[in-house]
Amino acid sequence: MAGILEALEENQCDAYVAYDSSDNEDMRYLSGFLATDPYIYVCRKDGGKFLIVSSMEELRARRESPCSIVTRTAAGFAELLQETGDAESATARMIQNFCGNRLLVPYSMPVGFARALEKTAEVSVDRDTVLSMRAKKTADEIEKIRAVQKKNEAGVALAVDAVRKAEVDENGGLLFEDSPLTSERLRAIMHEAFFRMGLDDKDTIASCGADTALPHAKGEGQLFANQPIVLDVFPRDIETGYFADMTRTISKGKPSDEICRMYEVVHEAKELAVSLIRAGVSGADVHNAAADYFAEKGYVTAGTSGFIHSLGHGVGLAIHENPSLSVRGGILEEGNVVTVEPGLYYPGIGG
Amino acid sequence: MAGILEALEENQCDAYVAYDSSDNEDMRYLSGFLATDPYIYVCRKDGGKFLIVSSMEELRARRESPCSIVTRTAAGFAELLQETGDAESATARMIQNFCGNRLLVPYSMPVGFARALEKTAEVSVDRDTVLSMRAKKTADEIEKIRAVQKKNEAGVALAVDAVRKAEVDENGGLLFEDSPLTSERLRAIMHEAFFRMGLDDKDTIASCGADTALPHAKGEGQLFANQPIVLDVFPRDIETGYFADMTRTISKGKPSDEICRMYEVVHEAKELAVSLIRAGVSGADVHNAAADYFAEKGYVTAGTSGFIHSLGHGVGLAIHENPSLSVRGGILEEGNVVTVEPGLYYPGIGG
Repeated sequence: MAGILEALEENQCDAYVAYDSSDNEDMRYLSGFLATDPYIYVCRKDGGKFLIVSSMEELRARRESPCSIVTRTAAGFAELLQETGDAESATARMIQNFCGNRLLVPYSMPVGFARALEKTAEVSVDRDTVLSMRAKKTADEIEKIRAVQKKNEAGVALAVDAVRKAEVDENGGLLFEDSPLTSERLRAIMHEAFFRMGLDDKDTIASCGADTALPHAKGEGQLFANQPIVLDVFPRDIETGYFADMTRTISKGKPSDEICRMYEVVHEAKELAVSLIRAGVSGADVHNAAADYFAEKGYVTAGTSGFIHSLGHGVGLAIHENPSLSVRGGILEEGNVVTVEPGLYYPGIGG
Repeated sequence: MAGILEALEENQCDAYVAYDSSDNEDMRYLSGFLATDPYIYVCRKDGGKFLIVSSMEELRARRESPCSIVTRTAAGFAELLQETGDAESATARMIQNFCGNRLLVPYSMPVGFARALEKTAEVSVDRDTVLSMRAKKTADEIEKIRAVQKKNEAGVALAVDAVRKAEVDENGGLLFEDSPLTSERLRAIMHEAFFRMGLDDKDTIASCGADTALPHAKGEGQLFANQPIVLDVFPRDIETGYFADMTRTISKGKPSDEICRMYEVVHEAKELAVSLIRAGVSGADVHNAAADYFAEKGYVTAGTSGFIHSLGHGVGLAIHENPSLSVRGGILEEGNVVTVEPGLYYPGIGG
């Protein structure tokens, strides 16, 4: 973890200290430990990495984490609590006894706790060292992302299959097993499949027709034939914590020529972008190549229509993380995992 | 919301400002708005309550929130972005233009963002004004908690029923529908029921035998007859965000006399505690009454055995919130919603 050591040197700090639960992706990443109560992660400038946990969590932390495990008791918390009279001051003092008093803390540390530390320590704020570390995946992480993506594909396949098997009523609405096939029902089909596979999905998108022109509309009501149906699906594996993300546009029957041409061009832009992605190329260059391709094909972005979002983003313990494939995207490195999801959006037409 | 206005006066501030997503319970509580991206909540000393949101969220925010809605565009974000060159400074400046420069912020505000505000504003940190407000539930909130508790009871009833219907193998292990009834399976029965009812459960406990002596052990492997089985179940309603919480000890067949006597005394302590709960009594007094009752019955707490956790806690948008029924619990008020869950834990025996 050279990243943190370099940041410590740059900021002339004795230790990097984070205090949060594993709901914070950085904590989970650094500690390898899952806990719903906050605990302390420390990386000292001598390279030592520690978790300070309650005695109740000691055994589990030893089993799950590659860091050295120290209990609060061993770190003198009880004595400090008696001295200071409150848990926050005792925690702050315990950290300083263990780490020194020049501390580097994450951007997300609660300002209230940072102020408790500041009473007796110099506190520098680190912006994105851990975020950058997380962008570069290990083989094990890539394996976990592959695994959840496979399950994601299986869930989306069920939705596609429902559309394929659907009948069309006299108004062009889709019927599945004799009742209307709605956005909600398509989501429920995927949601149930993900539940059985140990995935958690939130805000799954299944929109249809004109709604598809709004990038984040979840979709509601009956689906129709000869219209684009957009699925944007990003479940998380509950056990590993890793996300997958995929977007697909499908249709029952043939949509308008306009939509068909948009689909073709989006598909080509995606193939182009994927062919450009390699270590050393910038995310901005990849994004711009797709944008240029759209422009070349006559799809010019203006305000709320055209190619109005970034080409893609990193995926890992968070659904959106570094690196970015956008106008601000930096140089890609080996180990990055990114989505490529170009899109064209025309209000009133679709996307 | 007298609470925030009083806090503003006490700290001589112009406005209370929070900047977070609705994953933060205080944000969800104050705004009534659900968003996965961060937005700004403002309560000015003139009593005006505002959300500052991106244009994309405007319509939804207007529909969901009782606060006044202001878009970032209307609040001058674009101009400030051009002036300052970065989104963080522009956001900080936008907040100050809108609110004044003496700001009260929540304890949980990221220290990095607080430092951006501090460049040009005086920033005071509020500790628990919103936490205290949340402790006092409205009739509508109580209704939501009742609703999720009913569903919780239905899920737990299914688990109890599985134990009731289970057969006992030659080793005393439980069999349900011809295969071993395990902690995992009991959890899955509840998990599936909750899924269908729109609840999300995390860390449901279904432990058996000696494991029950460890308050937070989730339990694993086959369940056994004549042993205590502890269910501690706290699902959240995905739509309303409110939690329910219940703990039950059950058994297939008759456990040891020791366990039966513990069960009786815990049950009596619970009845006693419930009878004492009313507005004006302190949470500490209720906790201590239960502790004294245990002592009177010969169950003395020492280190890791006996009555080793607090009697109960508030429940709402968080599973643990104020007020506390513990040695540090303050005065109870009308509108508080608390759990009462005394327990006795004896390593090697059970709990």
